[in-house]
Amino acid sequence: MKRVTIIGSTGSVGVNTLKVIDGLPDRFEVVGLAARGSVAELARQTARYRPLRVALADAAMADAFRSACHDAGTPEPDLVLGPEGLREIGGMPESDIVVSAAVGAAGLEPTYAALRAGKRVALANKEAMVIAGELLRATAGRHGGSILPVDSEHNAIDQCLRAGRHDEVRRLILTASGGPFLDRPARDLDTVSPAEALDHPTWKMGPRITIDSATLMNKGFEVIEARWLFDVPSSAIDIIVHPQSIVHSMVEFVDGSIVAQMGVTDMRLPIQYALTWPERQDSPLPGLDWTRIPRLEFRPPDREKFPALDLAYRALEMGGTAPAVLNAADEIAVGAFLNGEIAFTAIPRIVAAVMDAHQTTPTDSIQTVLDADLWGREMARQVATRYQVSAGPVPSTGER
Amino acid sequence: MKRVTIIGSTGSVGVNTLKVIDGLPDRFEVVGLAARGSVAELARQTARYRPLRVALADAAMADAFRSACHDAGTPEPDLVLGPEGLREIGGMPESDIVVSAAVGAAGLEPTYAALRAGKRVALANKEAMVIAGELLRATAGRHGGSILPVDSEHNAIDQCLRAGRHDEVRRLILTASGGPFLDRPARDLDTVSPAEALDHPTWKMGPRITIDSATLMNKGFEVIEARWLFDVPSSAIDIIVHPQSIVHSMVEFVDGSIVAQMGVTDMRLPIQYALTWPERQDSPLPGLDWTRIPRLEFRPPDREKFPALDLAYRALEMGGTAPAVLNAADEIAVGAFLNGEIAFTAIPRIVAAVMDAHQTTPTDSIQTVLDADLWGREMARQVATRYQVSAGPVPSTGER
Repeated sequence: MKRVTIIGSTGSVGVNTLKVIDGLPDRFEVVGLAARGSVAELARQTARYRPLRVALADAAMADAFRSACHDAGTPEPDLVLGPEGLREIGGMPESDIVVSAAVGAAGLEPTYAALRAGKRVALANKEAMVIAGELLRATAGRHGGSILPVDSEHNAIDQCLRAGRHDEVRRLILTASGGPFLDRPARDLDTVSPAEALDHPTWKMGPRITIDSATLMNKGFEVIEARWLFDVPSSAIDIIVHPQSIVHSMVEFVDGSIVAQMGVTDMRLPIQYALTWPERQDSPLPGLDWTRIPRLEFRPPDREKFPALDLAYRALEMGGTAPAVLNAADEIAVGAFLNGEIAFTAIPRIVAAVMDAHQTTPTDSIQTVLDADLWGREMARQVATRYQVSAGPVPSTGER
Repeated sequence: MKRVTIIGSTGSVGVNTLKVIDGLPDRFEVVGLAARGSVAELARQTARYRPLRVALADAAMADAFRSACHDAGTPEPDLVLGPEGLREIGGMPESDIVVSAAVGAAGLEPTYAALRAGKRVALANKEAMVIAGELLRATAGRHGGSILPVDSEHNAIDQCLRAGRHDEVRRLILTASGGPFLDRPARDLDTVSPAEALDHPTWKMGPRITIDSATLMNKGFEVIEARWLFDVPSSAIDIIVHPQSIVHSMVEFVDGSIVAQMGVTDMRLPIQYALTWPERQDSPLPGLDWTRIPRLEFRPPDREKFPALDLAYRALEMGGTAPAVLNAADEIAVGAFLNGEIAFTAIPRIVAAVMDAHQTTPTDSIQTVLDADLWGREMARQVATRYQVSAGPVPSTGER
């Protein structure tokens, strides 16, 4: 029986983690839950799974949570609050596995705490590995922790890597859906609207990651994650556009053999893999329905049309705090685009200008990373003013 | 340094095995060669690789070989002759790995001898595993031998299986190009000519295997091989048509994850894998050229149009000598079709009739298998007379 803590238990990864645990009741037990909102849902989860400890955003949320538990007759678990509470639940001694699924930089500290405590982290939080991958990798190595990626691309690579040894890898091949502008001429991208950019062909996600998928910056972030998750140099990480998203990613070995992982698009698959690793357990998920599978396309990405990709490789080359700055600048630029302040094509330009201005330093602590994050945001805000469109939001139609 | 014996060294697998060994001179040494013909080529190989022992078809071939060695100034290796010589070289104590690449049933005895001697067999001979898979598997288990498949589908499965444990496999998925009649209406198959059937879309092979690819009997044989190579029940082996032959095969695990192996179509890849296993070594072979890869299609096979598939599953269900009889009957039926004696669609009918007549017995020895093979051939010859077309060879054009 493995004891599981879920950071971000009311989000989609958290909810799907609980579904996976429901299917494997003899193997997993929930000992910790953390959420920033959704008090009612968190109280329901607490009633059902009876965790030892629950982490909440603040005292006001704690009051609401206590009263929801009281109304339902649920015995109250230990409550811990705020960033300190997140750290505490991340490293809580009673857990074996921490599912790190908080959104944004908030996920970094509990992930770090879990790795310092030598735990297995099932990592769904993207930011942590992008902004502090080198530090997290070193921390895991020092304290006996391990990181198993939950997002489908890296989870696929983890599976494919089993077909050989680490020094037998020629390259990792991350697949990319290509986003909504895959087949749009580059000259049109100056004038695409937020609404068009938010219309992702295969995945429904939050607004920032959807825009990051349209610029392919999200795939650039995945290159950074892969570099630290799997300890391969960036020169050995490739991106291939695969619009059908059925092959989740691949590994090419030194003998020329390519091993790929495929499957239905259901996050319970990678979540369960990360929880049960190195074993696999039965799952209600089917394989692929071969009577309905579309033709699978593969092609290299257009790096001129999508300069975000090269920015990510550049951040890895710069090293240290550069990936944190890349992420921070991108978040600000994406926000400005969504607010109609800048053009879609200004996003990578702003990020590039911030990278140009950055003096990278080694990421020897969480604080260094968070400082770089702050610096990147501030610098991006300044740079963004130079890219502001004059006439307010750009038109929301692509007909021009 | 591993010592390698190659049975069938002048055939395409043999020649490619030597190319692989040329690329890894610090790891492999050739100690045995066997061939049935191509004296000049075998003498050149002997001059270059200096094997300890060479197996030849008969005394006449030995004379020609000796004189070729003498003319080239090559010191003469030990010579062994005929079936006895093949057994001897298969089990020769000085080798670690036996590449079993003889064509047809001739490959069975040296393969069996190698496994009895506890060697690793890199198996390229198809017949051996089809007609005597259960016996070979048991022999390997008893004597510490192992079998690594060289044909691309099973080699792919071997690679994919590394992504999980044996009891975590839900199904093996063999890919099939679908052969030349994939998109031909079933009603046309009665009248296709040998020339049309020999025109395989992706592979250039000998006539029997090309016809077996057109009937999909070849894929049925691969199901039988997979059943014994990987010790999975036939109910857990599926076939998926994939005309581009880029995905070489796949494994679906119990959690719903599918792991696939892909690569260029070059037999050096699986040969090298089988030689270097469990390691992988650098190879001059590239991965895939993603700028040129076609769209990949997948669909279930049409089992009514291609009844050979169900015949193979039926042979596994019958067990014992039934797969040997299946193979024997098919060889006779294919020969009759190539001679213009029967229609293409009579091939599976003849095989089915022979299976109907067969009383299966356990394959407890090579002799049992060879007896069943003889019985199957004789019975197929009798049955084939009932299917003879009246007017000689069928027309060679599909225009009707």
